[in-house]
Amino acid sequence: MASTSSPALSQALLSRHSLPSAAATNNQSSLSSLSLPSFPRIKISPLSSSVFHRRRTPSGARTSVRASAAVEALGSTTETALIEKSVNTIRFLAIDAVEKANSGHPGLPMGCAPMGHILYDEVMRYNPKNPYWFNRDRFVLSAGHGCMLQYALLHLAGYDSVREEDLRNFRQWESRTPGHPENFETPGVEVTTGPLGQGIANAVGLALAEKHLAARFNKPDSEIVDHYTYVILGDGCQMEGIANEACSLAGHWGLGKLIAFYDDNHISIDGDTEIAFTESVDTRFEGLGWHVIWVKNGNTGYDEIRAAIKEAKAVKDKPTLIKVTTTIGYGSPNKANSYSVHGSALGAKEVDATRQNLGWPYEPFHVPDDVKKHWNRHIPDGASLEAEWNAKFSKYEKKYKEEAAELKSIIKGELPIGWEKALPTYTPDSAADATRNLSQQCLNALAKVLPGFLGGSADLASSNMTLLKMFGDFQKNTPEERNVRFGVREHGMGAICNGIALHSTGLIPYCATFFVFTDYMRAAMRISALSEAGVIYVMTHDSIGLGEDGPTHQPIEHLASFRAMPNILMFRPADGNETAGAYKVAVLNRKRPSVLALSRQKLPQLPGTSIDGVAKGGYTISDNSSGNKPDVILAGTGSELEIAAKAADELRKEGKKVRVVSFVSWELFDEQSEEYKESVLPSAVTARVSIEAGSTFGWEKIVGSRGKAIGIDRFGASAPAGKIYKEFGITVEAVIAAAKELSS
Amino acid sequence: MASTSSPALSQALLSRHSLPSAAATNNQSSLSSLSLPSFPRIKISPLSSSVFHRRRTPSGARTSVRASAAVEALGSTTETALIEKSVNTIRFLAIDAVEKANSGHPGLPMGCAPMGHILYDEVMRYNPKNPYWFNRDRFVLSAGHGCMLQYALLHLAGYDSVREEDLRNFRQWESRTPGHPENFETPGVEVTTGPLGQGIANAVGLALAEKHLAARFNKPDSEIVDHYTYVILGDGCQMEGIANEACSLAGHWGLGKLIAFYDDNHISIDGDTEIAFTESVDTRFEGLGWHVIWVKNGNTGYDEIRAAIKEAKAVKDKPTLIKVTTTIGYGSPNKANSYSVHGSALGAKEVDATRQNLGWPYEPFHVPDDVKKHWNRHIPDGASLEAEWNAKFSKYEKKYKEEAAELKSIIKGELPIGWEKALPTYTPDSAADATRNLSQQCLNALAKVLPGFLGGSADLASSNMTLLKMFGDFQKNTPEERNVRFGVREHGMGAICNGIALHSTGLIPYCATFFVFTDYMRAAMRISALSEAGVIYVMTHDSIGLGEDGPTHQPIEHLASFRAMPNILMFRPADGNETAGAYKVAVLNRKRPSVLALSRQKLPQLPGTSIDGVAKGGYTISDNSSGNKPDVILAGTGSELEIAAKAADELRKEGKKVRVVSFVSWELFDEQSEEYKESVLPSAVTARVSIEAGSTFGWEKIVGSRGKAIGIDRFGASAPAGKIYKEFGITVEAVIAAAKELSS
Repeated sequence: MASTSSPALSQALLSRHSLPSAAATNNQSSLSSLSLPSFPRIKISPLSSSVFHRRRTPSGARTSVRASAAVEALGSTTETALIEKSVNTIRFLAIDAVEKANSGHPGLPMGCAPMGHILYDEVMRYNPKNPYWFNRDRFVLSAGHGCMLQYALLHLAGYDSVREEDLRNFRQWESRTPGHPENFETPGVEVTTGPLGQGIANAVGLALAEKHLAARFNKPDSEIVDHYTYVILGDGCQMEGIANEACSLAGHWGLGKLIAFYDDNHISIDGDTEIAFTESVDTRFEGLGWHVIWVKNGNTGYDEIRAAIKEAKAVKDKPTLIKVTTTIGYGSPNKANSYSVHGSALGAKEVDATRQNLGWPYEPFHVPDDVKKHWNRHIPDGASLEAEWNAKFSKYEKKYKEEAAELKSIIKGELPIGWEKALPTYTPDSAADATRNLSQQCLNALAKVLPGFLGGSADLASSNMTLLKMFGDFQKNTPEERNVRFGVREHGMGAICNGIALHSTGLIPYCATFFVFTDYMRAAMRISALSEAGVIYVMTHDSIGLGEDGPTHQPIEHLASFRAMPNILMFRPADGNETAGAYKVAVLNRKRPSVLALSRQKLPQLPGTSIDGVAKGGYTISDNSSGNKPDVILAGTGSELEIAAKAADELRKEGKKVRVVSFVSWELFDEQSEEYKESVLPSAVTARVSIEAGSTFGWEKIVGSRGKAIGIDRFGASAPAGKIYKEFGITVEAVIAAAKELSS
Repeated sequence: MASTSSPALSQALLSRHSLPSAAATNNQSSLSSLSLPSFPRIKISPLSSSVFHRRRTPSGARTSVRASAAVEALGSTTETALIEKSVNTIRFLAIDAVEKANSGHPGLPMGCAPMGHILYDEVMRYNPKNPYWFNRDRFVLSAGHGCMLQYALLHLAGYDSVREEDLRNFRQWESRTPGHPENFETPGVEVTTGPLGQGIANAVGLALAEKHLAARFNKPDSEIVDHYTYVILGDGCQMEGIANEACSLAGHWGLGKLIAFYDDNHISIDGDTEIAFTESVDTRFEGLGWHVIWVKNGNTGYDEIRAAIKEAKAVKDKPTLIKVTTTIGYGSPNKANSYSVHGSALGAKEVDATRQNLGWPYEPFHVPDDVKKHWNRHIPDGASLEAEWNAKFSKYEKKYKEEAAELKSIIKGELPIGWEKALPTYTPDSAADATRNLSQQCLNALAKVLPGFLGGSADLASSNMTLLKMFGDFQKNTPEERNVRFGVREHGMGAICNGIALHSTGLIPYCATFFVFTDYMRAAMRISALSEAGVIYVMTHDSIGLGEDGPTHQPIEHLASFRAMPNILMFRPADGNETAGAYKVAVLNRKRPSVLALSRQKLPQLPGTSIDGVAKGGYTISDNSSGNKPDVILAGTGSELEIAAKAADELRKEGKKVRVVSFVSWELFDEQSEEYKESVLPSAVTARVSIEAGSTFGWEKIVGSRGKAIGIDRFGASAPAGKIYKEFGITVEAVIAAAKELSS
């Protein structure tokens, strides 16, 4: 792979299509693409009694908090006027963009502009000209529909990804300002949000990654990993179960550098939250182990917001929820505080009224000069932050050479040369074993050679076989370890892994549950696929082969459902070599997640399978025909490839020319050349039989109109696995009968 | 449909396969299948200060609670010994069945036997000989892996579904005692559990149904609907997001007759819950608006458990969580309190040790005579309960004729004669409209004629168009209304609807969100399909046609993913007639859920579509060929059927013989005769083009190896809908080009 010098890399990262693959960034000598802090913007003095939840009046909050240097400067009368102007700039950029697109969500940006302003202008450490600078603070807009808030902030802060023309192209074809925040379209956006609750869970993953890397790489004399993760989430996110799952873990892990702003505006699409959401969020978060602060005046209480952030930072052993009471659509005289401002343009008349109301004389998309000037400092400041961090890293590198090299490889996503040689290989003489066990051999082999490899299971580690034996548990007090215990929280697990994957290219998270329970986490898995997060999903107990647990636990339609999903690799390996092959492809695909469906039951090591074969998705494992003219082609995957192989043995005894093909990954097969595909599935051979212990849906693609797909188009059953296979007709005899019928 | 007399019905209901369809129970005169209470088993005196949460020591609890008559009787020394014997019977039935199957989960039944005993022997009102008696208390084992607890209890209580031979056949082929509780296999089991968190959410649905029906039908002089819903859930359920969603709603709705036992045993599969679950569940539930009680000694504290239930019943405006601290595998000297007893047989040696430890001299599966005798009373008692309720209903019926008839129709699942005539029909001259709006016309038409029709949206009522205009909101103080406001809780919504559907055959719940967010609720939808809950899923914004919201909101693979799922009907109607047709089939399918994918955008009313056509799943809407020999067949669904029709018009102008087929429901088409299918898709015609704004995965089944499927095999994009259609090539021109290529 070619090396890329890091300034070029930084630029390349600004565009989705030119982003090099992880392996392409394999340049040990460059450094300037990493980078940061020590720039003394906000120095926080810990508050003495800040660990207890308290509700405060705005006035109380204002007097009780010592302002930092930056806060003091901004607190003066002149400056407050400028801040208000800046906040209104944010509001009107959102209003104008939504108005021009005649589509979008102005309400949240109008209400959250004050906290957004304080975060991006006063609190967060970032470099607008290198959105990928490693040690930047992360920001996640979990309430993704309010994306114009983030676009306006990125625009003001000087990110090249959101220029005025981008704002004017909000929600238009190929714009960098799509309808919800998309990390793969807009540098500066960390993760892809919109589906509610995902963002807060992603943020937990980002904060986990920071805590883990800090624990591994920080030294008493150098905190080389040191950033916060900020989130804004709304009532919608709060109602979603995934948010509760992820926040329970955040509390358990004590993610003190995770600070979530809850936009408490009392309005959701259906109207006042009173109609469906009357729980006490504060109490719930206390139960989850969070520090909770209430900012009563989120509309104009700048000092209250600042004080809350200060307090949150002082609480180091718990994540903090800052409940910020705001008015949705703040400033709109007739639509504020109503659902009508949530998801529609204000309309020309109301835009005018809002301009009047907030004293905004400017043209659409105008940023007043003083506001522009005020924000301009973030470009040099950001460059300084990165340069200082780079200098710090240089010192660190000199003193801690090995650690620096490892950290750099994680930041840049470099895979150690020859890593793939660690993967185990097998011969037909190797012992039969369940692919879940073979998977564990791969996981443990990979963890030894891949510094960014970490993960775990949703309370099924001993069933999924996912423990890394050389590591302990990632826990509040042992964050340097790599076995993550997710509890029974599949959905949160998937989204947390998305956050980990998108924190640093070289972090390779895997997560596990029973294959059927992908149903619980499918929304997060889809976002892995969409947002190019290379999570590895280790999904065991992949068919009726799990036996007695019965139909609630037996996947049927799941293979088909992932084969239909874009940008995700669905693997169903048949034995040890195929399992290793699946892991090889999965590790290489840093921008495409992988799902491995693995057996509970023992499977033989089949002749003809190979790691290289897996990379082609479908390949011949045995064939006694010549001239690409078998009498019949038997296709199978996973545990049923053995059945196909046995059937072939029998048919060959009777003189048939039989080819057996493993279709371990349909997506990879689709990507092969037409010549290759024809060499495996010659169009002249229409006698084709497939066997897979799952839905036959989609198999017509491989067996064709005249072939036969043997599978299961009903729910499973509770009984010993062998019995179910027999009763459902997933047998050697069934394959032989079908093959004879088609090839006679 | 034939009438069934109700005793026969009661019997018929005991078997899955002979269960008549809803319409088959259309017998207005019979009553004895309904039935109960007033049998004074446990009369509860409200506690004076019971609405506040308190933690109590066992001793404190014992002295502070007044025992009911039944409790007093059972509290005597002799009786306590018998109760312990009964509790140990439950434990050993579980141990023995798991041991014989060499598969299963003994730990929970051993720990929860005391609360299980008290529930089924002292508290719950049911008739073992008619598990479907309407006014029975409902019990849900949300921690479904512990199913041997429930099977043991059903066995002791005298249910015919679980005889000794059934216990001996635990987890075997075609047994009534599958690996997790399945309502469709085992009468007495209310819902299907195992996938964690589903059961507690189902229970919320059951309790909602009771509260709704009670509000509609109870009279000052007759509480004709009056039962409790009890649940046992474990740590696993508590960690799942779905449980938090559903419990937040239960608190919001004030479901006072929902009583949940939280089996607080501190062990999950991965070991001590300390490794992943350290939140305060009590505090969280207080935040959710529940009454919370802690029973510290769940292993032997019978009086504590009784007192907690009494307290819970006294709190009428909140659901109650009784946290019961237990020891998993109680009684096993070497495995209790460890994960090893969670999901594996104890092994012969440990079974012996446990027999020794608990003083159990009996053979496997033995129920001691005194225990048998003690439980035997539930058969006559249950019959009395039902008979008394029947007598009560007779009185009610005389005084409140109309209400009684309506309630009876809900209990029996009768659809009013001619109900389907309420569905709107359209002609090509009718105004173009989005199918989501046409759906709203159907929903409102159906709500007028179907007394058990109710539902709502996950905070998208005004986008999904699901409000029933003649009804108000189902809320804590207006439970008689039918618009259910689920908030942004898709997963909880689906599972709650499963509970509603399985409460009474005539309750027909619908629920709604954007089609893409089926990903959030897929686990609940799968259980609808598996457990034969005829929920109607109203899924709008069904393609890239939603436009600007972008790829996070645009379903691609979702149609395919449901077409692959067993026992669920996936509809994608093209216009008004097809929408009405989909609702007609959905309402008739009370044992198979339906998913309706509906457009955000306007669609014309197409010539040739019909309600009757939809029932066939695929049907010709226009054809200018003869002799079943078109030059080309154009297939489409939903919003793309219009494109197919337009392409056909153009092609016909050029002299082509073109058939246009709507494939509105693939499952229904599959069920048609071979003759019918051949009449629609003649095998001789291989020139076939399909168009659908979704994944092409699976379309080979219809277009064949030589046809062409036009679709979208990538993620969507954020832009106005028309632009995306054009850029993605979902156009009339593309269909024409493909048709010409294939038919030339």
